[in-house]
Amino acid sequence: MNGNGPNPRNTLSNNDQAIRDLRKIIIDCCRQCGGGHGGSAIGMVPLAVALWRHTMKFNPSNPEWFNRDRFVLSNGHVAILLYTMLYASGYPNMTLDELKLYASAKEPGKDGQWKSTLCHGHPEREVAGVEVTTGPLGQGIANAVGLAIASKNLGAQFNKPGHQIITSKVYCTTGDGCLQEGVAQEAMALAGHLGLNNLVLCYDNNQVTCDGPLSWIVSEDTNGKMRAMGWNVVDVWDGDSSVDEILAALKLAQMSTSKPTFLNIRTTIGYGTATAGTAKSHHGTYSDEDAALYANGDAQPHTLSNQTREFFSQLKEQGKTVEAEWDSRLSSYAHSYPKDAEKLRQRMTGQLDVQDLLRQLTTPSEPQATRQYNGFVFNALMDKVPQMLAGGADLWNSNQMGDQSNRILSRDHFDGRVIRYGIREHAMAAISNGLAAFGPGTFLPVTATFLMFYLYAAPGVRMGALSNLKVIHIATHDSIGEGQNGPTHQPVEVDSLFRAMPNLLYIRPADEEEVIGAWMCALASPDQPSILSLARDPPGVRLFTTSRDKVARGGYVVVENENAPVTLVSCGSELQFAYDAALKLSTLGILTRVVSMPCISLFEKQPEDYQSMVLSTSRHIISVEAYVSTVWARICTASISMDSFGYSGAGAANFKRFGLDGDGIARKVQDYVRAVDSSRTPMRRWVRLR
Amino acid sequence: MNGNGPNPRNTLSNNDQAIRDLRKIIIDCCRQCGGGHGGSAIGMVPLAVALWRHTMKFNPSNPEWFNRDRFVLSNGHVAILLYTMLYASGYPNMTLDELKLYASAKEPGKDGQWKSTLCHGHPEREVAGVEVTTGPLGQGIANAVGLAIASKNLGAQFNKPGHQIITSKVYCTTGDGCLQEGVAQEAMALAGHLGLNNLVLCYDNNQVTCDGPLSWIVSEDTNGKMRAMGWNVVDVWDGDSSVDEILAALKLAQMSTSKPTFLNIRTTIGYGTATAGTAKSHHGTYSDEDAALYANGDAQPHTLSNQTREFFSQLKEQGKTVEAEWDSRLSSYAHSYPKDAEKLRQRMTGQLDVQDLLRQLTTPSEPQATRQYNGFVFNALMDKVPQMLAGGADLWNSNQMGDQSNRILSRDHFDGRVIRYGIREHAMAAISNGLAAFGPGTFLPVTATFLMFYLYAAPGVRMGALSNLKVIHIATHDSIGEGQNGPTHQPVEVDSLFRAMPNLLYIRPADEEEVIGAWMCALASPDQPSILSLARDPPGVRLFTTSRDKVARGGYVVVENENAPVTLVSCGSELQFAYDAALKLSTLGILTRVVSMPCISLFEKQPEDYQSMVLSTSRHIISVEAYVSTVWARICTASISMDSFGYSGAGAANFKRFGLDGDGIARKVQDYVRAVDSSRTPMRRWVRLR
Repeated sequence: MNGNGPNPRNTLSNNDQAIRDLRKIIIDCCRQCGGGHGGSAIGMVPLAVALWRHTMKFNPSNPEWFNRDRFVLSNGHVAILLYTMLYASGYPNMTLDELKLYASAKEPGKDGQWKSTLCHGHPEREVAGVEVTTGPLGQGIANAVGLAIASKNLGAQFNKPGHQIITSKVYCTTGDGCLQEGVAQEAMALAGHLGLNNLVLCYDNNQVTCDGPLSWIVSEDTNGKMRAMGWNVVDVWDGDSSVDEILAALKLAQMSTSKPTFLNIRTTIGYGTATAGTAKSHHGTYSDEDAALYANGDAQPHTLSNQTREFFSQLKEQGKTVEAEWDSRLSSYAHSYPKDAEKLRQRMTGQLDVQDLLRQLTTPSEPQATRQYNGFVFNALMDKVPQMLAGGADLWNSNQMGDQSNRILSRDHFDGRVIRYGIREHAMAAISNGLAAFGPGTFLPVTATFLMFYLYAAPGVRMGALSNLKVIHIATHDSIGEGQNGPTHQPVEVDSLFRAMPNLLYIRPADEEEVIGAWMCALASPDQPSILSLARDPPGVRLFTTSRDKVARGGYVVVENENAPVTLVSCGSELQFAYDAALKLSTLGILTRVVSMPCISLFEKQPEDYQSMVLSTSRHIISVEAYVSTVWARICTASISMDSFGYSGAGAANFKRFGLDGDGIARKVQDYVRAVDSSRTPMRRWVRLR
Repeated sequence: MNGNGPNPRNTLSNNDQAIRDLRKIIIDCCRQCGGGHGGSAIGMVPLAVALWRHTMKFNPSNPEWFNRDRFVLSNGHVAILLYTMLYASGYPNMTLDELKLYASAKEPGKDGQWKSTLCHGHPEREVAGVEVTTGPLGQGIANAVGLAIASKNLGAQFNKPGHQIITSKVYCTTGDGCLQEGVAQEAMALAGHLGLNNLVLCYDNNQVTCDGPLSWIVSEDTNGKMRAMGWNVVDVWDGDSSVDEILAALKLAQMSTSKPTFLNIRTTIGYGTATAGTAKSHHGTYSDEDAALYANGDAQPHTLSNQTREFFSQLKEQGKTVEAEWDSRLSSYAHSYPKDAEKLRQRMTGQLDVQDLLRQLTTPSEPQATRQYNGFVFNALMDKVPQMLAGGADLWNSNQMGDQSNRILSRDHFDGRVIRYGIREHAMAAISNGLAAFGPGTFLPVTATFLMFYLYAAPGVRMGALSNLKVIHIATHDSIGEGQNGPTHQPVEVDSLFRAMPNLLYIRPADEEEVIGAWMCALASPDQPSILSLARDPPGVRLFTTSRDKVARGGYVVVENENAPVTLVSCGSELQFAYDAALKLSTLGILTRVVSMPCISLFEKQPEDYQSMVLSTSRHIISVEAYVSTVWARICTASISMDSFGYSGAGAANFKRFGLDGDGIARKVQDYVRAVDSSRTPMRRWVRLR
């Protein structure tokens, strides 16, 4: 057995001693919380030493240093490895006390308030040193692809001969799990296609997953698959012990000129412990014997030996030097290229002010669907906002995103600003999260596909919302108005997911004014993603009382009618049908107001009296939308909605078929109001009108 | 140019004439609807002739013939190809009139009712000859993997030496799009792992996608990737014209003994038309010149030549012969193996009666979490229900699905009944849809993972709901009670999606009684999928007034309290906290009723007076659930809920942190009731209590 195994020799090399000590801390932390995921962390320690101590450029004293190498733990359950390395490397926030709280909540203090901890069960981006929040498998690899694209893109835009300013590399770890996930396969295919040679994917190949041996579920030639996808593949055979072998492999990775690199590192899960090499080691606790394995005789739990402490202590100094050296390069760059340096500074600080532009924007006057107006706004912004790095999942034309063919990002033109993601929706969302995570506002990623296929991307959209990443998702063909494709392509329930998702703006504008207003809201919000939900059909009409400025209030009155017994609340394509129905109803003697509500969550944030004013005292507050009605019941007494999937037929025919055109809405309201008026039974809290 | 190109020779072979005629019909149908997806259909016609006319075993007069070969159009937008082949092959429902309605809705007749059509924009399973509904890319490949597993599994269970009764093969087509999707990559990896030699994936390799040339987005070695995943790869170079070459490749596929086969067929999108070979051919209309291309001189639109008509007419006779021959094999089998034959008959008819079993089931009496009770019920059912074919996404133990290690399905034991899907959630759901689609009730697929990761699987769950496929999804770790893993693993909004999804039962039982009741509901429903939403924590308590039989009503009273001003409506883990709070509140003088509501959609289907009785006339009807509250507002006046993501910490601490334990609930209700009572402002329609 090697020197870092259970039988210590008296003198170990610095690397071997560090491996022992770090494994010891991991075991101690898992014992402390009575759980956690220690096994893979133990196996991956030599890789971690190779990366943190010998390879990655970073400054522990300034975790946000702009040109740092980025590390992504795609196998996020191995969080304790990351925390341990941050602690050992001298990140000031990562104290021993925090480490001991791994996967535990801190009970409320005397003030009764619950405090935050740092060492969550899975790494969360708010913690200094954690680049992206990971856990849901596969997505971290896609985040890493996004970070790598970000670095290449910025480098291609700003680096000059003799002035290599942006040179960040991305190191991502993965277990057997991430590699099985579709989102990772999508992202790795794109990384190979783009030739991201600044990306190194380190595979902790321990042949064990949660339930058992990997051979139960995988029998493919992983290296062959990666090579077929355009990756440089390097094998490491002694990942359990040999920092040197890993370093040699990393060296090869750094020399790759046109391909991302896949390091296939053979390790043993829970190396040395009683459950080593088995699924039992994936998560769970460790015995006293396991704890004694890597102990330094009399040492207390959670301690590093002096040798390791000293070995790692150089990282702080080294980090300062690396950053200072970069600062001086940047000064020299600013001297030679003052305009570029100013632009880069704006990107580094995420400076963005386009509210005036949007406030003054005039759109084409011919009637268009909201996807078309959106394309107009998007193209106007692309000319003015260098941060925007957009892309679509092969429906760019259908999404009506406009001609950006002179801005395509490719392996030969990394300075491009439009990524052709391919038919890879989930990866598109997760890669965009990586782009957004590169720096504070340095990139403003935009994605595009049909709303239906944001269901494929939903786990990525969620991770963006959870980790405060500003990404704008352009979701067209957002209802039965989509038409011919039929119910497989017509969302009726997807809005319910996104409207319930915390920290996500789901905005469904009705016309050109509101499309502009939707962009104003999406851009104003500093740290949350938005979905702009847009129609294929019907051709938009300019609804003369809509207002771009009022979108920020979530909802507002578009047709007032004092003392009206009925208020229709609608949005998107259906708002024009609500207008139409209100006119018909008022003619029939049922006075009807209309409220446009492009964003329910923004409306619910308004002061109570504003909400009351908008909704009024109408006896019947009725939502009108071609979706299954869920969240509307919070503010309405009744809904005109879908309660089934859609149908394949022209959009106009669909609104008619489901009683959601002007005639259908008017008929349903009239029937309902008459039934309630003539009945003595009390009104139900909420009812779906048929 | 070949004989099936624009310049017809006077005499064409049967295959070449059929290719011409079928391309003509496709163009005519696209012209008729003014859209559609004709390009790939035109390119794939030779493959279609090879499959329908020469290879697949089926009986047009009995589309449901049990041992038929199954065809899946994973590139579902190429629907018109499938419809055309069903028409040419003599499926009686697929008339010329229906064909002409491709992607169009039939306007209502004199009775004002909207009628259904057959030729939807994407194929839908309700149409005879369509095995699965396809359109959302990638999923069809996974469906096909499911159908192939189903055939292998049934064959392994029932075939005997000299009696090959179940021999269905599965032919699936794919375009460039499906192959990029993660779900397809997951499914293909599993197909290779299992060695599904009865599966042939026919790749319409036309190098064009919706937005442009494939080279824009893909540069991998597709054959190499498929081989690395364990597939047999066969190239076809003249897919535009040579039925013979395709047939030779299909022959090789049929001879594969241990691998699925990937036919890489080079074709030209829109072959022969003005936009051939370009993205413009992907969808859109065709000119008069295009229409004339493949016309037979004076023929009317939509017609087949007599030669082709005759060439295909044999299929009807052939189908009858094939089925009759199978019937006779089955008789001989029944003679030799009467018991097996009876069991097979039960599988073919989907016979299932386990309600009595469930009604009488007694579970272990020690307190357990609902995931544990569920494991008990699941294992009891596995012993009694041969249709059940279950599987998990590598969280089998965490899901507490129990020891089924003697029933694992593998390439060496295809008769197993538990599939190790690997960490491939989306494919798991889509493969299960394929299993369910094999025959009416022949399989009862069960899937398992954490509720959070059903978001990865959601597009598959949706397609099951849309196409009436009974699959039971076991979703554990369903809330912040999950604990340590933190917000990446804690759903707070996923229920909103599934509760809004038409034709899906989302059931969240509170204890052992309701777990059994949930299974009763899921099994009773003939043609819809269910999600059983189950807790990791807290350890369940037996709530003495719950009832397995009442779950079918969706909601029912568990604590009555006449004239109580407050009714708490809850489910899942939180019901016990609602009990606790009700007790506390009643002690404080605020009389409180409690309603258990494991399934909102079933409750809303109950008669009006039942609903009123359950909800009562309490002034405050307050939902209690650790999710963002959306659909609850339909029936409640207020909600105690989440409005943020969760936290990494022990489950019990989380309920406390977010005020969702008994104390927190009681405090919020007390504060609210007092505030409302002492205020003169009218109660809001719905409010979230803080």
